[in-house]
Amino acid sequence: MGVPQFKALRRAYGFDEVAIAPGHVTINPDQTNIQFSIDGVTLKSPVIASAMDAIVNPAFAVEFGKLGGLAVMNMEGVQARYDNPQEVIDQIVAAPPENVTALFQKLYSAPIKEDLLAKRVKEIKAGGAVCAVSVTPANTKKLAPIAVDAGADLLCVQSTVTTARHVSKSVRGLVFSELLEMVNIPVIVGNCVAYDVALELMETGVHGVLVGVGPGAACTTREVTGVGVPQVTATMDCAAAREEYYRRTGRYVPIITDGGIRTGGDLCKAFASGADAVMIGTPFAQTKEAPGKGYNWGMATPHPVLPRGTRVKPGVKTTLQQLMYGPTSKHDGTQNLMGALQVCMGMVGAFNIRDFHEKAELIIAPSIKTEGKHYQLGLE
Amino acid sequence: MGVPQFKALRRAYGFDEVAIAPGHVTINPDQTNIQFSIDGVTLKSPVIASAMDAIVNPAFAVEFGKLGGLAVMNMEGVQARYDNPQEVIDQIVAAPPENVTALFQKLYSAPIKEDLLAKRVKEIKAGGAVCAVSVTPANTKKLAPIAVDAGADLLCVQSTVTTARHVSKSVRGLVFSELLEMVNIPVIVGNCVAYDVALELMETGVHGVLVGVGPGAACTTREVTGVGVPQVTATMDCAAAREEYYRRTGRYVPIITDGGIRTGGDLCKAFASGADAVMIGTPFAQTKEAPGKGYNWGMATPHPVLPRGTRVKPGVKTTLQQLMYGPTSKHDGTQNLMGALQVCMGMVGAFNIRDFHEKAELIIAPSIKTEGKHYQLGLE
Amino acid sequence: MGVPQFKALRRAYGFDEVAIAPGHVTINPDQTNIQFSIDGVTLKSPVIASAMDAIVNPAFAVEFGKLGGLAVMNMEGVQARYDNPQEVIDQIVAAPPENVTALFQKLYSAPIKEDLLAKRVKEIKAGGAVCAVSVTPANTKKLAPIAVDAGADLLCVQSTVTTARHVSKSVRGLVFSELLEMVNIPVIVGNCVAYDVALELMETGVHGVLVGVGPGAACTTREVTGVGVPQVTATMDCAAAREEYYRRTGRYVPIITDGGIRTGGDLCKAFASGADAVMIGTPFAQTKEAPGKGYNWGMATPHPVLPRGTRVKPGVKTTLQQLMYGPTSKHDGTQNLMGALQVCMGMVGAFNIRDFHEKAELIIAPSIKTEGKHYQLGLE
Amino acid sequence: MGVPQFKALRRAYGFDEVAIAPGHVTINPDQTNIQFSIDGVTLKSPVIASAMDAIVNPAFAVEFGKLGGLAVMNMEGVQARYDNPQEVIDQIVAAPPENVTALFQKLYSAPIKEDLLAKRVKEIKAGGAVCAVSVTPANTKKLAPIAVDAGADLLCVQSTVTTARHVSKSVRGLVFSELLEMVNIPVIVGNCVAYDVALELMETGVHGVLVGVGPGAACTTREVTGVGVPQVTATMDCAAAREEYYRRTGRYVPIITDGGIRTGGDLCKAFASGADAVMIGTPFAQTKEAPGKGYNWGMATPHPVLPRGTRVKPGVKTTLQQLMYGPTSKHDGTQNLMGALQVCMGMVGAFNIRDFHEKAELIIAPSIKTEGKHYQLGLE
Repeated sequence: MGVPQFKALRRAYGFDEVAIAPGHVTINPDQTNIQFSIDGVTLKSPVIASAMDAIVNPAFAVEFGKLGGLAVMNMEGVQARYDNPQEVIDQIVAAPPENVTALFQKLYSAPIKEDLLAKRVKEIKAGGAVCAVSVTPANTKKLAPIAVDAGADLLCVQSTVTTARHVSKSVRGLVFSELLEMVNIPVIVGNCVAYDVALELMETGVHGVLVGVGPGAACTTREVTGVGVPQVTATMDCAAAREEYYRRTGRYVPIITDGGIRTGGDLCKAFASGADAVMIGTPFAQTKEAPGKGYNWGMATPHPVLPRGTRVKPGVKTTLQQLMYGPTSKHDGTQNLMGALQVCMGMVGAFNIRDFHEKAELIIAPSIKTEGKHYQLGLE
Repeated sequence: MGVPQFKALRRAYGFDEVAIAPGHVTINPDQTNIQFSIDGVTLKSPVIASAMDAIVNPAFAVEFGKLGGLAVMNMEGVQARYDNPQEVIDQIVAAPPENVTALFQKLYSAPIKEDLLAKRVKEIKAGGAVCAVSVTPANTKKLAPIAVDAGADLLCVQSTVTTARHVSKSVRGLVFSELLEMVNIPVIVGNCVAYDVALELMETGVHGVLVGVGPGAACTTREVTGVGVPQVTATMDCAAAREEYYRRTGRYVPIITDGGIRTGGDLCKAFASGADAVMIGTPFAQTKEAPGKGYNWGMATPHPVLPRGTRVKPGVKTTLQQLMYGPTSKHDGTQNLMGALQVCMGMVGAFNIRDFHEKAELIIAPSIKTEGKHYQLGLE
Repeated sequence: MGVPQFKALRRAYGFDEVAIAPGHVTINPDQTNIQFSIDGVTLKSPVIASAMDAIVNPAFAVEFGKLGGLAVMNMEGVQARYDNPQEVIDQIVAAPPENVTALFQKLYSAPIKEDLLAKRVKEIKAGGAVCAVSVTPANTKKLAPIAVDAGADLLCVQSTVTTARHVSKSVRGLVFSELLEMVNIPVIVGNCVAYDVALELMETGVHGVLVGVGPGAACTTREVTGVGVPQVTATMDCAAAREEYYRRTGRYVPIITDGGIRTGGDLCKAFASGADAVMIGTPFAQTKEAPGKGYNWGMATPHPVLPRGTRVKPGVKTTLQQLMYGPTSKHDGTQNLMGALQVCMGMVGAFNIRDFHEKAELIIAPSIKTEGKHYQLGLE
Repeated sequence: MGVPQFKALRRAYGFDEVAIAPGHVTINPDQTNIQFSIDGVTLKSPVIASAMDAIVNPAFAVEFGKLGGLAVMNMEGVQARYDNPQEVIDQIVAAPPENVTALFQKLYSAPIKEDLLAKRVKEIKAGGAVCAVSVTPANTKKLAPIAVDAGADLLCVQSTVTTARHVSKSVRGLVFSELLEMVNIPVIVGNCVAYDVALELMETGVHGVLVGVGPGAACTTREVTGVGVPQVTATMDCAAAREEYYRRTGRYVPIITDGGIRTGGDLCKAFASGADAVMIGTPFAQTKEAPGKGYNWGMATPHPVLPRGTRVKPGVKTTLQQLMYGPTSKHDGTQNLMGALQVCMGMVGAFNIRDFHEKAELIIAPSIKTEGKHYQLGLE
């Protein structure tokens, strides 16, 4: 209509808006390989448990490690602030809803104790698991060396939005290339959602990139600040950066889709969008191994002046074993996530994740709102 | 915005997103012809009842045959595993919801008995109906000859996703051209959703192709694995393959849209999208002739480690006669499906299904969410 | 991608998906002219009451005529079949919901009495109103002359879908050019939704065209048969036909959007889409002047084997005066429809309906689902 | 499909349909500057309280001024008609819902008293705040001089739709260039939504333009008349006009997005769409400083014959301090709006609002309907 455009608008897609089309050749699920490797660390399954206090404590990390997955421990949460973190978690779980955010703000203002950090790392290592820890960029220089000295195997530097360049008037921003010289373990950085940012992060030498801003169930960043990118588009854009960086350098930097995955269907779509691994929160909060007793909350929830998240209560519904590998009697995609991935790869005809990236066709197919229909059809 | 694209996304459409535009000339409904023929078998009506245990037993097949339709009997379900299948169905119907999937897993692990298979085929033939049976690809070589020897008229080889080529490490995949040499009856194969796959299946010599992955009411493939293609697009793509194959060879291979059809409107849209016939489940489960007593469940429901479906209870609401031909006092499209098809063809001006394929214009017109409005307008 | 396309899909829009953008110059509402003329008959307001038995009886037609509108009486409904039609309406109103469709089917199988037809026409004329009557194409040759002889001023020939050519094996189709020679009053024909069909109907010489298939509140044509076109696109396409026909011949054939209009907003959008007048049902059923006592039902509801509609109960909520001209204390667009049209025309800067056609800019702007928000914001 | 197009349809977007993508460089929120200046008047925060009777009385204006914001007092509402306006507000608040529109119509027909106008202006000035007042175009010539003489600092001339040219048969339309000569204070004019109209308004010399027709929570213009443009598109179009006008003349005329903003996310999106400031209603009605005691109503609500709006009851939920600057324990975006804006600008890497206009990338990303999911995930 000839109106000059102030700025361009680009369509982005989320899990609920796409589906995977079956392939032209099918294979048996037992012929698929779903291993995930990052800088020499190889996991049986490409699933990482989020660094959330209701999910990962040393015991959980050990159990999940035994099942072939990887759990990240939050180095700025209750594990690092309290001698008896379970007591604090129980206090949060018991709080009435109207008081919980204020309680978060109070409990998370206790100081981080460096000796506790080292102790937690050693507990995980003692259990025989790969030990991954998470820090925010502002605390990385102080906390990362402690974790590395204590034996951590993998470091996540994670905030709501992370770029290779951050401007701050108080402190000099974290420079990832310097960090990599300081620590001699693989470093995963995030979260980001854009091609350029992912590419620039890869160019600093980091070993993995976390993808996702605003899509998680326990996160309200988008409601509070308007910021958020649906995960299919975010993952596809960062996957394009990975391919370009690989083409240029021959180094393959995996991307890990973090946030918004609730079912096997979501998980399969993340891989079809280009993810090498996924980071999951709420589904793990539903396992009986998680310390949160069926509750969960995000890392931005305790923010002192602008909380972006809340406590949710998904309930205890499964075990780690059932969630990951079944067998299950649930038909809604909430259990046997790895079985679902392998069945999906079989229908697409993909032998491994890289093959799945290439062969999985994504279609735009909004999920049918079936509530009314289910009622009409007698869904029990 | 200049971001390199990891992969293309194509828009797909389902029944609820389209409508049929009336034609430029109208005809009287009684002038329309809705017969369906497949390799010499001609049906009065282009409707096939799904091979579901809650729907098709020999008695149902005989009754539906009398009305001019075709019912497919599942050769791997309760009819083939139990001497008294109705007892087993009654047990499923009586189970509390929380136990039903586990019960399915147990009941469907009983062995398939070859003598029962032959007995069921003969029961249908004794009733004077065309006998169609369904097997999965993995069991086809073993079970198909038994059914053929017992007198079956038509064979469906059906799994969630079927292609002309399947890779398996345990057994050599089913080769359809070899199957066709082995059995001397028409073979319908599916399900598929893509142009290339449909074309390749037709090239093997099969006599019909089933279309649909993931859209059925009693199926949760899309929730569990992310895989699923909306039926309008799936049907249009396979219809394009049929036209191309016909153009090349002069052989017309009908396509049968299977899944997601609940009303006359859905059924008419399937034909407008290019279907030659439709396969229907849940609406038949609502007839008093069905053995499931108002319940229904899909063929992937009993999967031992990853069930994709559940028992639903649409209830007993009609008879086969009323469902197919009316008369009806229902105004919601759930009865007199053939009357609806003929009225629709009249409004489009189509004398037969092929004519309807050509003349029916489809528009993208999302169905109006009328709940609120109906309330406001006083729908009772 | 690269899949051959079986048929094209075109996007169509309904009232809820569009909005009107304000104009570049505004005028006072009292400067707008909303008169409507059709072949010498001029109405104060461009609104026609649907030929529904729950709405139009002779008394209603007379009252609405006094207010400057036009009501169409159904010549094949209870007014033409029963000496005391109000008794029959009361019987329908009193029936329990589960029996009402069957009751319709019984009551509407009573014979049409020609003397009653003439009597009803004379009652309307005696009240001083313009008398408009409605017949279906199949009965036009028999019933239209009776109405004309009795003094009818305007004839509607109306069915769900009407084209200039209809094929029937029993009777020779109605030829509109012959009908126009037979009756010497203006003839309005419908319903149609397509450019070509509207153009062809105009070429037969008819004086007006009704637009709309499947959008009405008391109509379920789309659920039953899949057929239906959203009203904004239907109106725009028929308006394009009117413009083309006018350009070719200099004769202006008004189009009347029929169905789906519930509020002032819908009504304004119909005119912005190109309507010269609108035909409305349910809102009139809500007036205390309507014989249906707050109930309504469509003309396809009593179909003997395939009813497409149902009795709805919008309730008695207003008077004809308030509905049309206010004043009102309702803020939801359900009253003072003509005031709303004039305010809208003022905001667009249009002096009359033709000017509004030219100046009203339509944007695609899906209506916000505000239920949740209203709750949050405290809508009472 | 070759159908001639009656008119073009352009897609427009609202807050719920877009999201903000994070930037390529991030900055600390405390480095962002959110000041807003209009013709020499500089505010600490770019937020203006709507001229609604339930929100702005002199006391509110003074309190909000102390917090660095600006409140506009309605010169045609209860403050100007009644000696004791709070009594009238209390009467509205106490009315039962079914009577409230009629009560509005009665109460707002009391005469405007010129001495009260001057008194209210002086009360605000006496409190030390910037005094902004609002009039409709029809009353501007009479009321504006009174306000200016009493000491008003800023004049809003506001109606549902305002253009530079209005045609009326009774009075000569308001000419803004003449008004600007008459009053020697900054003049803000609106509301408008279109590029051409905004440009033409700027050319008259006005100092600011209000953007928004039909999106407010307490407004039903779109339901009643069909008129309304979603705010993202409206703001982007008027921002394009501002840029063009600035390019031509070097004069920067700020645009103020008015209506539809309920959360921090909406507010951030308004600025990302090009707004220089925002005008907010309902969120202020939720403060304990507002005179409406948790109720709110729009300026078109009391219209004598066609009310477009209603009384809503968002409830008292916060204080002005908390709403604007926190700290908060709410995680849903309803408090600490300025904190949210600064966090958002930090994630985008924008140092000030103009920088944000340039750097904030908007994506089309429909908000996820999470009710069902929240339930499933245990949102409390």
